[in-house]
Amino acid sequence: MARYFVGVDLGGTNIKAGLLDEQARVVSRLSIPAQVDRGPEQVIGNIVSAAESAISQAGVDRRSVAGVGIGSPGPMSHRRGLVINPGNLPCLKNTPLRDIVRERTGLPTTLENDANAAAFGEYWAGAGRGVTDLVMYTLGTGVGGGVIVEGRLLRGFFENGAELGHIIVQPGGRTCSCGQQGCLEAYSSAYYLARRAEELIAAGEPSSLKARVDAGQMLMAEHVVEAARAGDALAARVWDDACRYLALATVTMQHVTNPQRVVMAGGLIAAGDFLLEPIRRHHRALMWKLLDDGPEIIFATLGNDAGFIGAAGCAWEADRTGQW
Amino acid sequence: MARYFVGVDLGGTNIKAGLLDEQARVVSRLSIPAQVDRGPEQVIGNIVSAAESAISQAGVDRRSVAGVGIGSPGPMSHRRGLVINPGNLPCLKNTPLRDIVRERTGLPTTLENDANAAAFGEYWAGAGRGVTDLVMYTLGTGVGGGVIVEGRLLRGFFENGAELGHIIVQPGGRTCSCGQQGCLEAYSSAYYLARRAEELIAAGEPSSLKARVDAGQMLMAEHVVEAARAGDALAARVWDDACRYLALATVTMQHVTNPQRVVMAGGLIAAGDFLLEPIRRHHRALMWKLLDDGPEIIFATLGNDAGFIGAAGCAWEADRTGQW
Repeated sequence: MARYFVGVDLGGTNIKAGLLDEQARVVSRLSIPAQVDRGPEQVIGNIVSAAESAISQAGVDRRSVAGVGIGSPGPMSHRRGLVINPGNLPCLKNTPLRDIVRERTGLPTTLENDANAAAFGEYWAGAGRGVTDLVMYTLGTGVGGGVIVEGRLLRGFFENGAELGHIIVQPGGRTCSCGQQGCLEAYSSAYYLARRAEELIAAGEPSSLKARVDAGQMLMAEHVVEAARAGDALAARVWDDACRYLALATVTMQHVTNPQRVVMAGGLIAAGDFLLEPIRRHHRALMWKLLDDGPEIIFATLGNDAGFIGAAGCAWEADRTGQW
Repeated sequence: MARYFVGVDLGGTNIKAGLLDEQARVVSRLSIPAQVDRGPEQVIGNIVSAAESAISQAGVDRRSVAGVGIGSPGPMSHRRGLVINPGNLPCLKNTPLRDIVRERTGLPTTLENDANAAAFGEYWAGAGRGVTDLVMYTLGTGVGGGVIVEGRLLRGFFENGAELGHIIVQPGGRTCSCGQQGCLEAYSSAYYLARRAEELIAAGEPSSLKARVDAGQMLMAEHVVEAARAGDALAARVWDDACRYLALATVTMQHVTNPQRVVMAGGLIAAGDFLLEPIRRHHRALMWKLLDDGPEIIFATLGNDAGFIGAAGCAWEADRTGQW
């Protein structure tokens, strides 16, 4: 009999869910409001309801559903099945979500960090298909990370591994929100690269972006990309640094987990070759000359679906290995 | 019946070997010349002879010997059991050593990178005992690395993982022998930190070490340590940088494999607290403030025995998992 897996992606605004088969094909998908303002019981009810709807909408025999995977914002604990203190879902603080969902659905359930789940999604069903070792960066407000080693998620002893945005790429560099200096995130996330452009303009450097800043508008990464494409020197430097530090972190990862493929995801990849080409060029220039073991660097393919697909993938993996 | 494991540590000068039991206790140990100048057949014969002597000297029933582990200098391939191009053992270039030893001893055999084997040794029998996730730096001529994730060696897709000496700690920094700029090795290895002191002296900076350099003597790391202890400003700076970059790489590793323990090995640890204290201090200052998930940073305990003990440990692991 075919086996199916529920994936749930828990966000601060919406809960996405879907049912996938063993070949990672999406059989059903849906999105419902999380309703964070209505308290933990409502949110938990919505999570269970999203999982149940994914099954009922797919019209498959419930006995063929092998389990549920949930992707949750961190900090959280996969091992303990615990949501600890998610910034955009404060009402779920210290909630043993895995056991609650298991009890209410009657299905084996696994809980995973959302960045890890997204990386597992690309590994199982997207840009990482067919490889065993990959590194994924998600370039959004921050820089998220996910690492697959020999087909398994790298979680780390304290379950804070693969936080690739906090690799130090510039000693004594820009202060990151985490308290470190010179984090990758402080240079290469959509949010922080726009902040950096604003800071340089505030410090008096000329730029075509100055008019926007003077008008009191917040710069977005898209504005920096646009200005860099049009030849603005300040924007071009900020953008090139964002790409170069991503390449530099990739060299470091090449010598740590030595992946076959590096996948770039998140809003910033809308820049297309204007992002990918300089990352690849800097990577070739920065990496060692002893061996040609550089990874292939490509874009993610699942977009915003990576979360629920990957969560279902985590359930598939738990079912396959018997490790719920 | 008790089970025993042969460990062989292949060096350019000597071959060390020993027999260990399942509790990682050394039952026999020996060292014989490698005799590299007498050609590959002689060296291979010596390797087999070292393994056989480890068994016969231990006086155990040969049927209780479960297998042989060999630690080989890189580049090599664990997966293919192949010695590829070891700098100090050129006569073994492209030798399928695993299969040769297996055939001649009639015992299951596994081949491992020597830095990985040493890390596995500390994990199995030394400073990493009782932990599942560790990172080891070996501070010698270069900076070697070994990483254990959930009790398993991190090898990487191309089998060049855990080359921690080539983590980039200073973009655009000192040129490393690997062709990169700003590698950890270029600042924190015994050899390169002494070179750095020489370069700064040659560039005209004052130092108590200048007399030695003017006399045409090559500086050793010990001289830099001694001068730094005595308050020489140049030596103190070179030494502090070596410690600080090790701490910085450790912050990066904290966010990648998130180990419970970091183990420092190699000749440089003779400096004792003068090495360990600044590494710990810089690490605390450099790491993020979000979570207190910093690893314990301690010294290795097996010294030069880590190689053959770890090689035996790799055989123990292969026997335990059935993955020879």
